[in-house]
Amino acid sequence: MTTEIVERILAGDVRSVGKLLSRIEDRTDAADAAVLARLFPHASGATVLGVTGSPGAGKSTLVDQLARTYAENGDKVGIVAVDPTSPYTGGAILGDRIRMHSLSTHPRVFIRSMATRGRMGGLSAGVDDAIVVLAAAGYRRVIVETVGTGQDEVDIARSAEVTLVVLVPGMGDEIQTLKAGIMEIGDIFVVNKADHEGAQKVIREIEALVADRNTVRGWTPRVIATVATTGRGVEELAGAVGEAHRFFQESEFGRSRRLEADQRRILELLEQRALDDLRQTLDQEELARLAEKVSLGEANPYEAAELLRRRCLGRLRGGGEAGEPGRSAATP
Amino acid sequence: MTTEIVERILAGDVRSVGKLLSRIEDRTDAADAAVLARLFPHASGATVLGVTGSPGAGKSTLVDQLARTYAENGDKVGIVAVDPTSPYTGGAILGDRIRMHSLSTHPRVFIRSMATRGRMGGLSAGVDDAIVVLAAAGYRRVIVETVGTGQDEVDIARSAEVTLVVLVPGMGDEIQTLKAGIMEIGDIFVVNKADHEGAQKVIREIEALVADRNTVRGWTPRVIATVATTGRGVEELAGAVGEAHRFFQESEFGRSRRLEADQRRILELLEQRALDDLRQTLDQEELARLAEKVSLGEANPYEAAELLRRRCLGRLRGGGEAGEPGRSAATP
Repeated sequence: MTTEIVERILAGDVRSVGKLLSRIEDRTDAADAAVLARLFPHASGATVLGVTGSPGAGKSTLVDQLARTYAENGDKVGIVAVDPTSPYTGGAILGDRIRMHSLSTHPRVFIRSMATRGRMGGLSAGVDDAIVVLAAAGYRRVIVETVGTGQDEVDIARSAEVTLVVLVPGMGDEIQTLKAGIMEIGDIFVVNKADHEGAQKVIREIEALVADRNTVRGWTPRVIATVATTGRGVEELAGAVGEAHRFFQESEFGRSRRLEADQRRILELLEQRALDDLRQTLDQEELARLAEKVSLGEANPYEAAELLRRRCLGRLRGGGEAGEPGRSAATP
Repeated sequence: MTTEIVERILAGDVRSVGKLLSRIEDRTDAADAAVLARLFPHASGATVLGVTGSPGAGKSTLVDQLARTYAENGDKVGIVAVDPTSPYTGGAILGDRIRMHSLSTHPRVFIRSMATRGRMGGLSAGVDDAIVVLAAAGYRRVIVETVGTGQDEVDIARSAEVTLVVLVPGMGDEIQTLKAGIMEIGDIFVVNKADHEGAQKVIREIEALVADRNTVRGWTPRVIATVATTGRGVEELAGAVGEAHRFFQESEFGRSRRLEADQRRILELLEQRALDDLRQTLDQEELARLAEKVSLGEANPYEAAELLRRRCLGRLRGGGEAGEPGRSAATP
């Protein structure tokens, strides 16, 4: 079964790619770790782009234009649109992100929306897995699109080889308040809607802010003006992406950035597995009983957590049953 | 030592409160879990308010006004200003949040900025701990101020008993795009800068959006217009907060919301401890060696994580040394 899905994905079978991405998103099948481990050696050929910015900045249109440029050059392009999930309803906050893309029927473009479902670092881990799947399936360009400059976006920026921050005229205050965050994430700043009033002002502000960045990272972020709806500036942007990618591939800074990303990636996978082990050994009924007691003032959440921790450790110690198929918990 | 700090905090000693909050933020001392467990039974008397909204919405000024109102009624007020930390520099993204508050020298007001340092659910866990400390130290009002409507903010909203979402005129598009997220978080919507153009429009939009919310939660969110800089509307806001608090205290919906919050809290503490166990049993040098190999294409992050997981499990099984003082890993 593992071999079959691995072979289908390596052959670029779109349906198998879609199915595996759904399983990764839902985290329904721990055996997928074995599939991902087998896909990984085939996943090194893709360029991974991160694109972030406020809602309404025109990211989807811009991503479409970039994807079209790459697809017309003959590359297969995978787009992962990250969709903040409402923790209350479980539904998507921003609606169906796929519908915001015009390219969803292009034969060489695969678009996928991924929800930030699940807690504790689940998002960036899932996106990293999705990148592996798409790259192994022959998508030479993978674009990860996120909203905002929160922790999730920064985590994803760290997985991408080149990160674009999309800004629009008329957000001067926002630049001032968020400038540290934005400045650190972006390798390329795109001022979209550059035909709107105030575009020159934003461009000048960003240029002033990035001017001395090269002392830190050896790379001075480019500032590119675009009008995504007409395609203006997109070719220049694609050129800047290529330039940034080469710089990070070849420079010592790029090498150390990749090493850091790999270390973080292993640690994330490890933490994810530790939390999986916890969930599998946790007695949900006992948790519910303890929560009820805490709620009534009869127990203490700190002591309840410690009690449950000891129980889980006891079960993990008790035998190998904590490991699922393919993820044995046997001692080394 | 534990008894001494517990007694000092219960006596309301400001310096001890500050020191413990620093340790919680840095997560330097796992023994603090024992202190928190002892403080918890004394922490039930406080009303916890969450305040969120975009940068520039005037949250800090509004929180100052509310805090002043409560302090003038004789209550001690604790303010926790959550500060997004840059994952690159480790510094604060928005600058010193405390300086944005005018009340920092008021004798009955304690203001503390807390960084979102650390990964994987660290923020909301730390804030929950801070609430326990402040409540045990006699702060009858605790206000947690966050920026935005991301996962962190939602998590904090779930810890608060009443959550305020602060909006300002001229953000119509933002309301449309983020309305699901905002709608779910807010118990009270504050339209601040209500003397600015477009205030009525925002108020009408929000009122339209909240109109049928009471069918879901039994509580129709209030919409209050304020001008924080002059204090206009602040008294009405304090009244609405009191009303919402009573509703959630007395209603069946409030009871089930608290039960859910308690269950989530235990689970978060448990996950935090599992990750602590992992960090303590992880061989950092082995992680670095494996990352180097992955970076050179000689190893696979999935297999590396699995190898490290087995090693950590082996060490956890090997004996009780994984537990720190006060947190023994002995079987139950």
